[in-house]
Amino acid sequence: MGKGRLEAFSDGVIAIIITIMVLEMKVPHGEYLDSIAPLWPVFLSYVLSFIIVAIYWNNHHHMLHSVKHVNGAVLWSNAHLLFWLSLMPFTTGWMGENHFAPLPVSIYGVDLLMCAIAYYILVHALIATHGRDSEFAARVGSDWKGKIPLVAYAAGIALAFVNVWISLALYAGVAAMWFIPDRRFER
Amino acid sequence: MGKGRLEAFSDGVIAIIITIMVLEMKVPHGEYLDSIAPLWPVFLSYVLSFIIVAIYWNNHHHMLHSVKHVNGAVLWSNAHLLFWLSLMPFTTGWMGENHFAPLPVSIYGVDLLMCAIAYYILVHALIATHGRDSEFAARVGSDWKGKIPLVAYAAGIALAFVNVWISLALYAGVAAMWFIPDRRFER
Amino acid sequence: MGKGRLEAFSDGVIAIIITIMVLEMKVPHGEYLDSIAPLWPVFLSYVLSFIIVAIYWNNHHHMLHSVKHVNGAVLWSNAHLLFWLSLMPFTTGWMGENHFAPLPVSIYGVDLLMCAIAYYILVHALIATHGRDSEFAARVGSDWKGKIPLVAYAAGIALAFVNVWISLALYAGVAAMWFIPDRRFER
Amino acid sequence: MGKGRLEAFSDGVIAIIITIMVLEMKVPHGEYLDSIAPLWPVFLSYVLSFIIVAIYWNNHHHMLHSVKHVNGAVLWSNAHLLFWLSLMPFTTGWMGENHFAPLPVSIYGVDLLMCAIAYYILVHALIATHGRDSEFAARVGSDWKGKIPLVAYAAGIALAFVNVWISLALYAGVAAMWFIPDRRFER
Repeated sequence: MGKGRLEAFSDGVIAIIITIMVLEMKVPHGEYLDSIAPLWPVFLSYVLSFIIVAIYWNNHHHMLHSVKHVNGAVLWSNAHLLFWLSLMPFTTGWMGENHFAPLPVSIYGVDLLMCAIAYYILVHALIATHGRDSEFAARVGSDWKGKIPLVAYAAGIALAFVNVWISLALYAGVAAMWFIPDRRFER
Repeated sequence: MGKGRLEAFSDGVIAIIITIMVLEMKVPHGEYLDSIAPLWPVFLSYVLSFIIVAIYWNNHHHMLHSVKHVNGAVLWSNAHLLFWLSLMPFTTGWMGENHFAPLPVSIYGVDLLMCAIAYYILVHALIATHGRDSEFAARVGSDWKGKIPLVAYAAGIALAFVNVWISLALYAGVAAMWFIPDRRFER
Repeated sequence: MGKGRLEAFSDGVIAIIITIMVLEMKVPHGEYLDSIAPLWPVFLSYVLSFIIVAIYWNNHHHMLHSVKHVNGAVLWSNAHLLFWLSLMPFTTGWMGENHFAPLPVSIYGVDLLMCAIAYYILVHALIATHGRDSEFAARVGSDWKGKIPLVAYAAGIALAFVNVWISLALYAGVAAMWFIPDRRFER
Repeated sequence: MGKGRLEAFSDGVIAIIITIMVLEMKVPHGEYLDSIAPLWPVFLSYVLSFIIVAIYWNNHHHMLHSVKHVNGAVLWSNAHLLFWLSLMPFTTGWMGENHFAPLPVSIYGVDLLMCAIAYYILVHALIATHGRDSEFAARVGSDWKGKIPLVAYAAGIALAFVNVWISLALYAGVAAMWFIPDRRFER
């Protein structure tokens, strides 16, 4: 089974997610600074989510490059990842509109955590398909870089009720860590 | 006539459908649990529809893989399928917003039934193109797996006025049955 | 200059246009038939536009298949076509929401006319690129099938103020005529 | 690392941006000319932005054609460009809804300036990847055509508070200058 259409479909869904997120930034009615100024938390949320979704696309792109074949388990693991990514416009919009209130920041973290778990499952579905001794499995290695986000996001979810800026720093920290494309899948 | 652009166009439309469905889940205004809690039926509807549309994509992907050539009848059968799929965001949103009321659940079933009929027509347009003795026709076989949804959805449409949970169980049951990618088109 | 990305970009834009049109069909608030019944003109408009946009995609698909090379003039003729197609969700929504009132039906015809003109320009930009003696030009031939819509749409625009059903019959008539994929570009 | 998926993802995002911009043109409620007439500034803004985004797609298409390989810096420079392009529906909608008021026209220019800067960075990331002596670098040359927009947009941002029509003329002037596809990357 070819991986071409899986890449094309994922590209399509991720491209749409990253673009419709901006639709949550509603055009304000007034023409002066005071009508656009209150949008800054929505804008900031959008910037953060744009970077995170772009990172997922980059890593997905790199990882699929090394993939030899896909099967039903991979298709569903991938659809599962796309599902949680597809909720990003919603969780981003809710967080932005409520100016980083505790619950929305925490729920945003839940979505990030589910994406990270889904990505982790996808990686392991691909390892299972290629075999533990495959070049693909060797490239993934111990996958500590895939485990750190799980811990950071879980902490962010809980700490949002203490101080949302700690949570946001954790979310941004994971993004910074993943900013550099995944070298494991480069040649 | 190449099938490449048919796949690309279908991928595009299905990717957009699956993603804009989430736009029906409107960002609530409040920042507390009581403003997000009433969204659970919308969320549940979205989960069900996401899985169903993903199944269509998976099966479409698999089936097109075995296709050798397409013609005008296939292009229109495919567009017909995409039409009914494109109504999913609407029927999903209506069902979710009305907390699984009888008529919306029934209408949702009508959309599912039309998608299933359209898929059935597409399969048979492809058989007609390839010939009854073709490898493609042999793979499809008796297509009982394509006939069960027709019966289940028709039952769901009627039974929604008795008890919506029977209908939803039927819709979910078809999804569960189709969850495993269609082996007929795997090698 | 390759035509691959032109096809991919056009596919993307047309796929999005055809899908976001359904967003003009707003989910109604009530759960009974009387809340969904008034949507029938919106639904009917959507069906007509879906078929028309699908025809454009089919013909574009077929024509590009025969194209050997593209240049700047072709890229802009294509973008011009996509521009008028991109207004379809707006003109469709306006016509549907106003239950086929004269002005919206007429403006809908203006959009259709501009699409037809843009397609005509695209065909002739492609002929200019390939040369009057090319196989491509021979296939296009006298292009009477591209000229009939121009006349029919112009008549529909004017006659909407007499009787909108004449206009809608003309629009639907052109769609019926073009329903069969363009045989000139089939082998 | 292949450039194919980078092209596909960029095509997807740009196709969505160009299409959802039209969603800012809300379907009016009345059926007469006086309900659609006030939309002319929104329509005009849409036309301008459609042309500008189409130009970016054309140039991106041409430039990527000459590209031999991409790396992490190129992926992020590209994502950075897509980010500022993704704000076009918002800035376009705000400018149109406020009938070309000074601040929205200026902010629209800020978005255009950021797109131009991002494109400039992308060009130079590609030069760095290919080497200063590469054919790609030779084709880019002194890149005066990439520097003029920076000056024109900066002037437009400031002059919007004097007279918005000067700014709009500058924005349209850059578009006119770039209307002809970038010959440096044609053969």
